[in-house]
Amino acid sequence: MYKCNEARLKESIVMFSRFGATKNGGVTRLSLSAEDVQARDYFYECCRELGLEIRVDDLANMYATLPGKSDLPPIVMGSHLDSVVKGGRFDGVLGILTALEAIKTIKENDIELDVPLTIVNFTNEEGARFEPSMMSSGILSKKFDKQKMMQSTDKDGVTFKQALQKSGYEGDEENRLKEASAYIELHIEQGPVLEAEQIEIGVVEGVLGMVCYEIRIFGESNHAGTTPMKMRNDPLFLANKCITKLIEDLAKVDDELVYTIGRMNVTPNIHTVIPDKVVFTIEARHKQPEKIRKVEVIIHSLPAESGECKIEKEKLWDRDTVHFDSSICNQIEQACHGYGYSSKRLYSGAGHDAQFMASYIPSAMIFVPSIKGKSHCEEEETTFEDCVKGADVLLETVLNLQTKIAMKEAFI
Amino acid sequence: MYKCNEARLKESIVMFSRFGATKNGGVTRLSLSAEDVQARDYFYECCRELGLEIRVDDLANMYATLPGKSDLPPIVMGSHLDSVVKGGRFDGVLGILTALEAIKTIKENDIELDVPLTIVNFTNEEGARFEPSMMSSGILSKKFDKQKMMQSTDKDGVTFKQALQKSGYEGDEENRLKEASAYIELHIEQGPVLEAEQIEIGVVEGVLGMVCYEIRIFGESNHAGTTPMKMRNDPLFLANKCITKLIEDLAKVDDELVYTIGRMNVTPNIHTVIPDKVVFTIEARHKQPEKIRKVEVIIHSLPAESGECKIEKEKLWDRDTVHFDSSICNQIEQACHGYGYSSKRLYSGAGHDAQFMASYIPSAMIFVPSIKGKSHCEEEETTFEDCVKGADVLLETVLNLQTKIAMKEAFI
Repeated sequence: MYKCNEARLKESIVMFSRFGATKNGGVTRLSLSAEDVQARDYFYECCRELGLEIRVDDLANMYATLPGKSDLPPIVMGSHLDSVVKGGRFDGVLGILTALEAIKTIKENDIELDVPLTIVNFTNEEGARFEPSMMSSGILSKKFDKQKMMQSTDKDGVTFKQALQKSGYEGDEENRLKEASAYIELHIEQGPVLEAEQIEIGVVEGVLGMVCYEIRIFGESNHAGTTPMKMRNDPLFLANKCITKLIEDLAKVDDELVYTIGRMNVTPNIHTVIPDKVVFTIEARHKQPEKIRKVEVIIHSLPAESGECKIEKEKLWDRDTVHFDSSICNQIEQACHGYGYSSKRLYSGAGHDAQFMASYIPSAMIFVPSIKGKSHCEEEETTFEDCVKGADVLLETVLNLQTKIAMKEAFI
Repeated sequence: MYKCNEARLKESIVMFSRFGATKNGGVTRLSLSAEDVQARDYFYECCRELGLEIRVDDLANMYATLPGKSDLPPIVMGSHLDSVVKGGRFDGVLGILTALEAIKTIKENDIELDVPLTIVNFTNEEGARFEPSMMSSGILSKKFDKQKMMQSTDKDGVTFKQALQKSGYEGDEENRLKEASAYIELHIEQGPVLEAEQIEIGVVEGVLGMVCYEIRIFGESNHAGTTPMKMRNDPLFLANKCITKLIEDLAKVDDELVYTIGRMNVTPNIHTVIPDKVVFTIEARHKQPEKIRKVEVIIHSLPAESGECKIEKEKLWDRDTVHFDSSICNQIEQACHGYGYSSKRLYSGAGHDAQFMASYIPSAMIFVPSIKGKSHCEEEETTFEDCVKGADVLLETVLNLQTKIAMKEAFI
């Protein structure tokens, strides 16, 4: 079994972390920003040096291909080079750099491929500059409408279309990824499970379904000093009751359910004024749709009124659980066994381009551990040892897959 | 007993409500703003027409005096002309306009006064442009340091000192109110009690003591989708528990205790991110200091730590209960009986200039009902009928007081 080069991968990660580097060891590399374009230019150069054939589509998605002996649709690896504001130096970019490392290893070992291998850099996965996240894979998989996305605007009023044109990376629609034999995305876990359980590789079987509601509670604002308790309609006290009820009921649904109240705003938010409005979000994720349905029943069990207060519940969005290709997952798991790397099958709680690609390409993901589960922050960290183990597994999976595909075998 | 003129008082209220009028029937008349200066100019003109002697001190406090036969220290009536942003047309200004109406009634009835009567307009009672509130009465009563207050800055970076100079109302320090026989401030209740109990006049015996704490809960931010419930240190869930405990315990202290969580901020406040910090205020008010001490014991009974989360409690401020002059309160109550107006003794939950003046001048307040208890908003409302009843009681109280003072009687 071939081994990737940890020192070379490390150098590559360190090099890319310079583009948009922040003071505290993270990166700010918003999609199509000057920093993102620097990273793209350097990625382009790396691919050119490896002799890869590079194409760019109308969404600035970049595809770098190592040809195989056959004309079969390629096996695609990759992720994204963009980051959130003050994000980490592994999220996204690691999927591209491990793919580059895999191809370097293939080339230095003179491995002849039957099937072409393509590295993809998806534009605007984070959605941190232009909402929504996973914009390009969403367009490729027809979840999002291109014309609508082109009008998405950043905080300075620049549209995605304008940023595309300015970047120099607006290519041709005909270059879009239309068919592929497989899509494999390596990513940091962004959660604490692998590290806590001392597991080296996560075999990602899919992406959890989720639902997100906004709860709005309306009461009556009054002076905090002059309004007797019995004459108040305090939406904050009611929100507290509602949250207590939600937490109690959600805890009973299933041990694997995750649920979060991440956003909460009080109006007018003055210490001497009884609020007139409290708005908070509650989101929950689980593999099984029936558990998500239970969550919705719990949310709707909150009353519409309580005293003089009103309670509104609005579903902001939901998504169904995405199940990845089981034969690719088996290949990933076998590769782990081959190297002697511990592995665990799990579902991703976070969204990834792979969840959209899975709608028309057999897809799966490889996770490497996130130290303390941190991501989208400058403290995001994964050891280089774990990174290269991920690259090994990616390489081995791709090599085995391409052999099987070339032999026109069904996946195991 | 003399009666004030409802039509004239109404005209006066309507006239002043033009200065800084908002679309929805309120006023925005921030201290020393152009709108406040318009109101001051008009007040000056009204006083001049009545032949009052007008002085302005170094804080732009305005004093308009009707001389009496003696040189005894004056009886002072008044309040403030400034308002909060989108405030009402009664808060503050009504104390000045009822005083003006009382003097008009005295003059049209050719009543000869033994003791001078002064109307005061205190600068920056609201603290809405320059913190803190009750700034000028605080300086007069030596609670606040003048030089420090002069540096208080509005949201545009203008200092109180600069605004003073620009207003044209910066007078001499020697004009400050140094001694007075009494201070009586008429004000809207800003609470719902008088209206709910169908009472016409509130005899205000003092201002409630209060305490305000900020509670800061620190947890660990992580991805909402990837972090199992058992591996979270969610400060929002902990805040919910703390608030539940606070509300339960505070409800047992005393029926008259009022307590409010008015401000609450969640960080980073993103629906897909477990918060790392929740900060909220809890303030409570009660007449009896021992009840306030109980509140502090309850707040400090929250643990300093829970799991990996930390809980900090910081007292932002407190104030002792202020007790007004009982003999003036008796005079106010007797005036109500004389007119046949229903009255109720109560403590103010809100702060007023009178609470500072009480430290060196025998003081009390008269409340008129606030419809639905609304104040500091455009919906603030008091009927003109109730306003003039307040003016009647103010007039009668002042007339009786000045007779007694002139006769060197002790207050009843």
